[in-house]
Amino acid sequence: MDSRLRCRELKSKVMSAKEAAKFFKDGMVVGTSGFTPAGYPKAVPLEIANRAKNGEKIGLTIITGASVGPELDGELSESGVMKRRYPYQTNSTCRNKINNSDINYCDMHLSHTPQWVKYGFFGNMDIAIVEAVAITKEGHIIPSTSIGNSNVFVEYADKIIVEINTSQPLELEGIHDIYNVDIPPFRKPIPLTKVDDKIGTNYINCNKEKILGIVFTDIKDKTRPVSKIDDVSKKMADNLIEFLENEVRENRLPENLLPLQSGVGSVANAVMGGLVNSKFKDLVVYSEVIQDSVIDLIEAGKVKFASGTSLTISPERLDDFYSKFNNYKDKLILRPQEISNSPEIARRLGVIAINTAIEVDIYGNVNSTNIMGSRMMNGIGGSGDFARNGYLTIFTTESIAKNGDISSIVPMVSHHDHSEHDVMVIVTEQGVADLRGLSPKERAIKIIENCAHPDYKEALYKYFNEACEGKYKHTPHVLSKSLSWHDRFMKTGSMENKESLSQNN
Amino acid sequence: MDSRLRCRELKSKVMSAKEAAKFFKDGMVVGTSGFTPAGYPKAVPLEIANRAKNGEKIGLTIITGASVGPELDGELSESGVMKRRYPYQTNSTCRNKINNSDINYCDMHLSHTPQWVKYGFFGNMDIAIVEAVAITKEGHIIPSTSIGNSNVFVEYADKIIVEINTSQPLELEGIHDIYNVDIPPFRKPIPLTKVDDKIGTNYINCNKEKILGIVFTDIKDKTRPVSKIDDVSKKMADNLIEFLENEVRENRLPENLLPLQSGVGSVANAVMGGLVNSKFKDLVVYSEVIQDSVIDLIEAGKVKFASGTSLTISPERLDDFYSKFNNYKDKLILRPQEISNSPEIARRLGVIAINTAIEVDIYGNVNSTNIMGSRMMNGIGGSGDFARNGYLTIFTTESIAKNGDISSIVPMVSHHDHSEHDVMVIVTEQGVADLRGLSPKERAIKIIENCAHPDYKEALYKYFNEACEGKYKHTPHVLSKSLSWHDRFMKTGSMENKESLSQNN
Repeated sequence: MDSRLRCRELKSKVMSAKEAAKFFKDGMVVGTSGFTPAGYPKAVPLEIANRAKNGEKIGLTIITGASVGPELDGELSESGVMKRRYPYQTNSTCRNKINNSDINYCDMHLSHTPQWVKYGFFGNMDIAIVEAVAITKEGHIIPSTSIGNSNVFVEYADKIIVEINTSQPLELEGIHDIYNVDIPPFRKPIPLTKVDDKIGTNYINCNKEKILGIVFTDIKDKTRPVSKIDDVSKKMADNLIEFLENEVRENRLPENLLPLQSGVGSVANAVMGGLVNSKFKDLVVYSEVIQDSVIDLIEAGKVKFASGTSLTISPERLDDFYSKFNNYKDKLILRPQEISNSPEIARRLGVIAINTAIEVDIYGNVNSTNIMGSRMMNGIGGSGDFARNGYLTIFTTESIAKNGDISSIVPMVSHHDHSEHDVMVIVTEQGVADLRGLSPKERAIKIIENCAHPDYKEALYKYFNEACEGKYKHTPHVLSKSLSWHDRFMKTGSMENKESLSQNN
Repeated sequence: MDSRLRCRELKSKVMSAKEAAKFFKDGMVVGTSGFTPAGYPKAVPLEIANRAKNGEKIGLTIITGASVGPELDGELSESGVMKRRYPYQTNSTCRNKINNSDINYCDMHLSHTPQWVKYGFFGNMDIAIVEAVAITKEGHIIPSTSIGNSNVFVEYADKIIVEINTSQPLELEGIHDIYNVDIPPFRKPIPLTKVDDKIGTNYINCNKEKILGIVFTDIKDKTRPVSKIDDVSKKMADNLIEFLENEVRENRLPENLLPLQSGVGSVANAVMGGLVNSKFKDLVVYSEVIQDSVIDLIEAGKVKFASGTSLTISPERLDDFYSKFNNYKDKLILRPQEISNSPEIARRLGVIAINTAIEVDIYGNVNSTNIMGSRMMNGIGGSGDFARNGYLTIFTTESIAKNGDISSIVPMVSHHDHSEHDVMVIVTEQGVADLRGLSPKERAIKIIENCAHPDYKEALYKYFNEACEGKYKHTPHVLSKSLSWHDRFMKTGSMENKESLSQNN
């Protein structure tokens, strides 16, 4: 315990999760650590959920870094504690409650959340719960596998509860770099010019008077297994690599590229993983989440340094990862998400932003969040922080979904997260559409020709050609049909117009 | 002439506009100065247009800062010279050709254009034409009433033509602050922390070997008159000021606010102009365009400093403005648009971003560009540079257009430029919707209740209520009806469903 809780005056604050859970009152605004299912508090949220399950009326607003694990998003949703949620989630119980309108969810650019706390846009923050590997002699907090907004919550919340998680190795100490950004008009340039710059402290500065309780736990991060790389993902990765190789040949990128940012999940992991087989070397990563593929790239000698705000290693390789942790430690850094997702830094470093789309339309608009325009999947996450500020902005999607009942290339996306102004390149397993500098009509042809699935090409051209007959020809649309594919899917279970097909046959 | 062209070696380069126009060949990529109808080249473009009118085949790609005057966008469009256009325009001839698909137009975030030149995404730039008030002894260029991308074009174009415009007063010398941003991976923090920081030089550094020709002209900037402030604009301004006053009361803004950014045009001018009658003082402006209202605010002692990339004073007050120019000179600065529109700076300073919407939907998405989804108006301009990075992001629109045949609040915008993630506050003459932190359904009620025109409220609620009956309730939509208001307008000339209204009666 002495190695984990090094501050003598705080030993009296150690309590059970159950005791700590009693501090939470109906209507409170609570900020927690956690970004992906890594570094989020577990023991206290479970006990808050138990209070509600035992009949107590307790509703909370929960603000995190990004997604968190089932002990937090799952249990608080299930128990009805979660009333309002910011800024991102991936938990199925939470998602269902959002789509049933039982939870008020506002999905936000991840770089906005810390600012909003500071600016007072969420109102007062009552309690922060942060996971730590240790507390220093001075009472400062050493985070675990993610930082997210923990530094901001610790500074702005009235009170703090720390979960010291002994399943998180003490070796993590030293990989964090906590830098605080002032609010305007006092804000200064963030002094980071290379992905491996260390600009802050190893710990989160904490006013120990604000600590309400310290809870010990050993519940492990519920990180997610990553899927095997399938043929479709492999083709997407190959297409992306070919595109990047060409950019180098055309002198639009240096030989070791520029810092890579990649979205989260199996497809993103597979696409990044594809770089293992590329000729690229001396790569660097400036992203949110360091997942398995980045570790593979470090092991393969392809990536020399990776910066993120979260370290999410899949369960099956976690033990191996920590057994060799000293090999990686000087190649990894975790930063607050205000820094990892900073537009200032993304643009300065010139990141290559690679994110996943749910669907893309013929003019290059991207839907990242709402399936069929209405059903929230996860949220926009950090994709907008990077897409608008990347040196290159790339979106990847498989050309079809649901065994072909959905075309991911549509006449008009049913929800817009990234506009035509922010999307440079679309990659599907079919090919690559480089949209830079093209007018909307030129983009449409590139996207249909290079990226759409063969089963939907004809129907896309049909829509586009009819639209081009209309009165205004800059972004041609047939407004009565723009969303008809989605409408048809909702009504028939497929975007394919089977009637028109059988007529054609 | 000696005061305007101070470099001895360059005197031999003086030529007529007609001679200079001969350097342009079919297929060239040309960058020009100009941002709003201010500081754009005039004499040479007129002569290029004449060549085409006389039967020569000459098609060009034109890249500017933003909109420019009729001698450039009008004449080159009319004569068929303009084949491709970036990144923004407001000229009616040019707009019509874009909407007829005669000009390939790609409208871009204005902060992206200088980067794209540097990154090579537009290909090679053959010639830059920049307007100047003078050329220094060393051959450097002193810009006139705007900077835009002139510094970048002068650095990256193979050759340069300078138009020295003697109608632009030499007193302008000294208000420019030219700072060059490196490309990644060499980019450094931009050392600007206050709106009045001077971080660069008074002139554009120029390799004089690249100067092909110097043309003298005295054609004046064709700036646009601004409309009188009407009752509707006044109500919008009043609503905005009331909102800002409340933010100060709630301690979410300092008493002198934060740097103001405002879009361009009569409505934006009127809204800013409303601040003259407010209690605010010691205001500062960090924007793109310094237009009449900013000068009024300086005269009224409300604004103590204004930074922009363009100085656009309406024709009727231009003489008066220059007669008192020394009163203003130390309160104004012009910067390259890479700096005026920099996300890094906008976020650091915490600008209050106030931009104009064409239409807004019930979930807070904004259309700034394409009327009825297809007809390009002007372009997104710098609104996205500020909206995503502002401390506060406000969009203003009159609640109706076309005498009420169009509702500016619609079920779903027909084109998306600013997503729900970037829009905090909507202001119409009806009222203010503060959307911060709300879920989509909460936003819908706020927008309909506070911002929609009374004539459309019932129809908006009807759509929303029907949508809420659907399967997915996060962002409820009835996809078969989402764009039906626009479709109806295209077919009947009005968004109002007159059939359903008469049935209701």
